[in-house]
Amino acid sequence: MPSLTITRLRPTPEQFVQTFGGAPALAHVDAGTFLEVFTEDCYAGWVRDEAELPSAMCPSPLRNPLTGPIYVNGAEPGDRLAVHFVRIEPARNWAVSATVPSFGALTSTQLTASLQPPLDELVWRWTLDLEHGTCTFHARDSDARATVPMDPMHGTVGVAPANGEVRSSLVPGTYGGNLDTPEIREGVTCYFGVNVEGAMLSLGDGHARQGEGETCGVAVECAMNTVLLIDVIKAQACAWPRIESDTHIMSIGVARPLEDAFRIAQRDLVEWVSRRCRLSLMDAYQLVSQLVESPIGNVCDAGYTSVAKVRKDWLPAHDADPTHARLRALALDYLQDH
Amino acid sequence: MPSLTITRLRPTPEQFVQTFGGAPALAHVDAGTFLEVFTEDCYAGWVRDEAELPSAMCPSPLRNPLTGPIYVNGAEPGDRLAVHFVRIEPARNWAVSATVPSFGALTSTQLTASLQPPLDELVWRWTLDLEHGTCTFHARDSDARATVPMDPMHGTVGVAPANGEVRSSLVPGTYGGNLDTPEIREGVTCYFGVNVEGAMLSLGDGHARQGEGETCGVAVECAMNTVLLIDVIKAQACAWPRIESDTHIMSIGVARPLEDAFRIAQRDLVEWVSRRCRLSLMDAYQLVSQLVESPIGNVCDAGYTSVAKVRKDWLPAHDADPTHARLRALALDYLQDH
Amino acid sequence: MPSLTITRLRPTPEQFVQTFGGAPALAHVDAGTFLEVFTEDCYAGWVRDEAELPSAMCPSPLRNPLTGPIYVNGAEPGDRLAVHFVRIEPARNWAVSATVPSFGALTSTQLTASLQPPLDELVWRWTLDLEHGTCTFHARDSDARATVPMDPMHGTVGVAPANGEVRSSLVPGTYGGNLDTPEIREGVTCYFGVNVEGAMLSLGDGHARQGEGETCGVAVECAMNTVLLIDVIKAQACAWPRIESDTHIMSIGVARPLEDAFRIAQRDLVEWVSRRCRLSLMDAYQLVSQLVESPIGNVCDAGYTSVAKVRKDWLPAHDADPTHARLRALALDYLQDH
Amino acid sequence: MPSLTITRLRPTPEQFVQTFGGAPALAHVDAGTFLEVFTEDCYAGWVRDEAELPSAMCPSPLRNPLTGPIYVNGAEPGDRLAVHFVRIEPARNWAVSATVPSFGALTSTQLTASLQPPLDELVWRWTLDLEHGTCTFHARDSDARATVPMDPMHGTVGVAPANGEVRSSLVPGTYGGNLDTPEIREGVTCYFGVNVEGAMLSLGDGHARQGEGETCGVAVECAMNTVLLIDVIKAQACAWPRIESDTHIMSIGVARPLEDAFRIAQRDLVEWVSRRCRLSLMDAYQLVSQLVESPIGNVCDAGYTSVAKVRKDWLPAHDADPTHARLRALALDYLQDH
Repeated sequence: MPSLTITRLRPTPEQFVQTFGGAPALAHVDAGTFLEVFTEDCYAGWVRDEAELPSAMCPSPLRNPLTGPIYVNGAEPGDRLAVHFVRIEPARNWAVSATVPSFGALTSTQLTASLQPPLDELVWRWTLDLEHGTCTFHARDSDARATVPMDPMHGTVGVAPANGEVRSSLVPGTYGGNLDTPEIREGVTCYFGVNVEGAMLSLGDGHARQGEGETCGVAVECAMNTVLLIDVIKAQACAWPRIESDTHIMSIGVARPLEDAFRIAQRDLVEWVSRRCRLSLMDAYQLVSQLVESPIGNVCDAGYTSVAKVRKDWLPAHDADPTHARLRALALDYLQDH
Repeated sequence: MPSLTITRLRPTPEQFVQTFGGAPALAHVDAGTFLEVFTEDCYAGWVRDEAELPSAMCPSPLRNPLTGPIYVNGAEPGDRLAVHFVRIEPARNWAVSATVPSFGALTSTQLTASLQPPLDELVWRWTLDLEHGTCTFHARDSDARATVPMDPMHGTVGVAPANGEVRSSLVPGTYGGNLDTPEIREGVTCYFGVNVEGAMLSLGDGHARQGEGETCGVAVECAMNTVLLIDVIKAQACAWPRIESDTHIMSIGVARPLEDAFRIAQRDLVEWVSRRCRLSLMDAYQLVSQLVESPIGNVCDAGYTSVAKVRKDWLPAHDADPTHARLRALALDYLQDH
Repeated sequence: MPSLTITRLRPTPEQFVQTFGGAPALAHVDAGTFLEVFTEDCYAGWVRDEAELPSAMCPSPLRNPLTGPIYVNGAEPGDRLAVHFVRIEPARNWAVSATVPSFGALTSTQLTASLQPPLDELVWRWTLDLEHGTCTFHARDSDARATVPMDPMHGTVGVAPANGEVRSSLVPGTYGGNLDTPEIREGVTCYFGVNVEGAMLSLGDGHARQGEGETCGVAVECAMNTVLLIDVIKAQACAWPRIESDTHIMSIGVARPLEDAFRIAQRDLVEWVSRRCRLSLMDAYQLVSQLVESPIGNVCDAGYTSVAKVRKDWLPAHDADPTHARLRALALDYLQDH
Repeated sequence: MPSLTITRLRPTPEQFVQTFGGAPALAHVDAGTFLEVFTEDCYAGWVRDEAELPSAMCPSPLRNPLTGPIYVNGAEPGDRLAVHFVRIEPARNWAVSATVPSFGALTSTQLTASLQPPLDELVWRWTLDLEHGTCTFHARDSDARATVPMDPMHGTVGVAPANGEVRSSLVPGTYGGNLDTPEIREGVTCYFGVNVEGAMLSLGDGHARQGEGETCGVAVECAMNTVLLIDVIKAQACAWPRIESDTHIMSIGVARPLEDAFRIAQRDLVEWVSRRCRLSLMDAYQLVSQLVESPIGNVCDAGYTSVAKVRKDWLPAHDADPTHARLRALALDYLQDH
C-alpha cells in the first residue's frame, strides 16, 4: 500500500471565513492530498437548544462559517478541481434546525416580499445516534418523535468566484458555494471550474440530513469531521458544478426562478452525455429526457439549486472520465486504515 | 372471493375527447368498480416512426386524446375521488418520442419567447420488450442504443374543473390533467377533489417511461391497457391532487414559476402530515423539511408540476386514511384472477 | 353625416356570464356597429361599503360578471376582431376596492403558498366626482383623503378561447380576458385573434382607475356605461392581444413568471415593428429595445400581464394598418351626437 | 451665493474599476461636494462601429468600467447616501449598441439555458445631436433611420455591498449597481443604504437613452460628463435603492423572477408612503395599489429591476424628507454658473 499524504485542518474560531474569495489561504496542499477537516455548523456551534435563537446567538454576518480556503498547488484558471468526499461524519451527538424569520420556502422573504408578519423564529434540537446512523426529531408542541436514517452531507462547498468577486458563504453560484443539495454526500466526487490560482477551496454547513428543497430554510445542522481527497484535472474547466457517484453523473444548476436552475442543469447534463456517449446533441437531449432524475436542492437560498442526474450503466458505450473511479479506489485504501 | 364489478372502456376513434369538462359521460360507474380502459398515445397513434412528424400527422387540437369522461355515481362537489392504478401495461411493442418546435424545457417556447429559430421537429421510435419490461432507445445520428427499464405511467388523469371551466387535455391544474409526473404508476392511488356531479374522470397520455421534468417535452409515448379501481370519499375534498403508494404519501403542485409549484406541494404535504400525525403546523414544517423528496414532474406544460413525497414509515404514530390500503387489497384480488 | 348603427346591451342580473366561451350569444351584431353596454363591477354591485365583505356578498363563482358574449357576424377563426373604446364612463358616483385573503401581489396566495396567516379582508369605498373626473380615497384608519384623477378602463375584455376551452372571467390569456392593464382606456382600439365563429366578445370589470400591477389585487371597481365600435379584419389573426392608441402601438403578454409575460409582449412588438416599418427582425429588436415603454398590467391574476408600447411617430416611415384611424374618426362622429 | 466645493474625477484608463467593493478609494470627498466625473461607456470606448465586436474589443472582465469608488467622509453603516444627479451629458457625439450572444431578454442565456444557437453578435452605431438633444438609429439591413429624443441616464451607480462581498459591475443588488433603469436621469436624487465606512460610491454605464427592460441587453451606450451632488443622511438606512424626482418618489426592487423584483419595490413604496403620509400599512397598500406606476428597469442582467413610483402631489398631507428639495436648490445654483 502506498503512503498517503494527509493534512489536518481544524480552524481556530477566528480562522473561519464567511466568504468565497477575498480571504488568504488557510493551507496549501498538493493534488492527491487527503484532507481531514473539521467544519462548524451553520450557526458556528452557538445554537444548541430551543432557547438559543439564531438571531441572538449568531447574527447574520457570522453565519455559515467555512473551513478554508485551501490553496491547491498547480490549480489554475481553466482547470477543473475534483473534490472526493471520502468520509462525512457528524462531530457531535446533536444537531439543530430552526425557522428563521423571512427565510425559507413557505414564508414570504426579503426577495419574495409580502406585508404579512413573518413566521416565528423557532429552534429544534435533534439527537444523533452515530452508532446506528440515525437522527431523532423531537416535536416542540407534543411528545411526538421520529427517528430516521442520517444521510450526512455538506450544504456548502466551492472555490473562489471569477472576475474578482467575493461572495457570502450563504450564496450559491457557478463556483459552488451554498448549494444545499443532499447529493453532496460520502462517496461522491464534486467538480468545480477553477477561477483563480490555487482554486481556493472552502467548505462547511454540514447536515446530518436534509430534505430536497431545504423547505424551511434550515437542515439538521451539525459540525462535521470530513475527509476529502483533492485532485486537479488540467484544462477541463466546467461552467457549473458537477457531481459523480459510483452510480450516477450529475449536473447542478443555480438560478432563480427554479425553472432556470432546472434548465441549466439539464442542458449541462445533455452536453455531458453527448460528449461522454458520442451522441449528437439532439440524441442526447432525447435520451436524457427519458432517463433523468431531477431532485431539487434548495428553494430558500439566494439562488435555487436543481440537480439533473442519470445512471451511468444506463448510458450507451462511452468514454468515461476515469477521475472518480481513481479517487474512489484511493479513498478505499484510506478507509481501510482509518 | 367476492365477485368484482368490471367495466371495459375502449373508445372508438371519434369517442376520444381533448378536454377536461365540457363533454358528455362515456360511461357511468359505481364506486368500487374496476375499469379496464384502453388509452391512445398522445399523438392518437398516428406518429409511428421518424418520417411521421407530429405537426403533419396529429396537429394541435387532436393531441392528447383522453378516454372518458367517466361519471362516478354518487360523487359530488366536496367529495374526494380515489383512483387506484391496478395495472398499467403498454398496448403495443413500440412507442414514440419527439421534439416539437417551440415546446420543451431546453428551447424557447410560445411563453418563454425568444427571437431564435426553434429546434428541429424530430421523432424517435423506441422499441418495447413487454416480456422483460425494458424499452430501447435508438439514436438517430449514430448506431448507439440504450436499453433501460420501463416504468409505465399515465401523464394525464383528472376530473372536470370547477367554475364551469373546460380545459385542454394538454394543461394541468387543481383538477389534475396533464400532470406528467412519473409518480402516477402502477400500484398508486390518486386523489382528486370533485368539482361536478359524477366527478367526470378522464385519462390518457401513457408513457412507457419518462424522465423527471419531461425535459424535451415528450416522453416515451405509448397506448396503454390500464386497470383502475374507483372509490369516492365523501366530504373530504382536496385542493390539489394527491398520490399515495405503499411507501409514500405525495402532494402535487402545479404552477409557474416552478418554485410556486414547489411551494404548493410542500405546503399541502406539511398540512397533510400535520393532520395525519397530529403535529402542530410548525412541527410538521420542520419534520417535512428534513424528510421530503422533491422530484420534478414536468417543466414543459402550461403549468409545471412539483411533487413532495415522504415515507409513511418515517412519520410518527398517526391516523392514516385507510383508503389506499383497502383499494390495494382489492386490487391484489383482481390481479390474482387477471 | 351617415346614420350610425347602435345596439344597446344592459343585461338582466341573470344574463351576466362568468366565463369566456361556453355561453350562448347575448346579441348578434354586424361589424361597424356601435355598442352601448352596461357592465357591472367585479362584485356584481353587491359590495357597497366597508361592512360588505366580498367573501360574504359575492362568493367566488359569482365574481367578475361579464356583459356578453356578443356574436359578431362574419368573424371567423383566423380573423382579427377590432374593439374600439369610444367612451368609458362610471355608471355610479362610488366605487369599491378591497383586500381579499390570499389574493394580491403583497401576500402569499394559493399559488405562491406560505404557512403565514393571510392579510385581513377589508373594503374601501371610493367616491367618484364624474363632473371633475376625479376619485377620492378615504383612509380606513385615519381621516386622510386623497383626490386623484380618474382614468376609467376595463380590466376584462376578450373573445372565446381556442380548442373548445372555457375560462373563468378572472383569468387572462391569449384570448384577452382579465388582462387588468390601465392601457385599455377610452380612445384605444383592442385587437384579438378570433378563435370561434362570431368571436363571442365579452367585457366587464370597469375600474375608475388602477395602478400598474393592481398590487393589492383589486382596483377602484365600478359599474360602467361603455360605448364600443366593433370591426373585423379578415385573415389577420394575432396570437396575443394588441392595443392601438392615437400615439402608441402596444403588445400584451400574459404568463407567469412575469419575465415570460415581458418576453411575449416584447417579441410581439418587435415583430409588429419589423413588419410595419419594413425593418429586419434584428434592426427592429435594436430599435424597440431603445424606444419601448414597459408598464406592468397585473401581478395578481392567474396570468400576469406585461405591456410593450412604442410611440408611432418615433418609428421610421411605415405601412400602418388604417383600422384605428378609421374607427377613431367614426367614434368622433358618434361623440358629436352623444 | 455661497461658494461651491467641486471635485473633478477623470480616471486614467488603468484607474477604472469593474467591481462594487474590493477597490481602494479613487477620491475622498465631504458631503455637500459637487463631483464632476467622466464615465466611460460599457465597452470602455473600444467598440466604435459595426466592425468592432464587443467579444473581440472588450472581453467580459473589462466590461462596464466604473468611475470610483468615492469615499464620502462621515458616511457610516446605517446611514443613507444621497446622490443627486445635477447633470448627465454625453461626452461624445456617438454611441453604440449591440446584441451579445446569450445575453438579452429575447434569447436564451447562460441562466435561461436552451439548446438553440445564440443570436448573432451585431453592433449598431447611433449618432448623437447634443445641441438638439436627439439621437439617431441607423438600420443595418436597410436605409431606415429614426431620430428620437435623448434621455441621458446612468445604468450603473451604487455603493460597496455589505458582508464583505465584492460584486461585478454588471450585477445589480441592494447596494445599487447595474440597475439599468431609465429613471436614473438628470434631476433625480438616488438613495443607497451605506454598508461600509465611506460608502464607496461608484458609477458608469451611461446611456443616451434606454427602453424599459433593456430588451436586447444593451442600451445606447456612451461616455458621460456627469455632475453629482453628494449628501449623507445619518442613521436612516434604506434596504433597497430609492429615487426621488421633483414629481415622484420611487422604490427599486432587484430580483429574479421579475415578480419578486416587483414585490420588493411595491412593498418598499407602501412602507415609504405609510411613513411619509402617516397612513396605516393597509391604507397605504390600498392607496399605492391605485396610484402606482410600475415601469420595468432591466430584464437582462443577473438581477431584474422593477420600479414602483407615485406622484408626490397625489399623496395626502405628509412629512416629506427635505433632502431632495435641498439638493435640487443647490444644484440650480451650480447650474446657473456652469
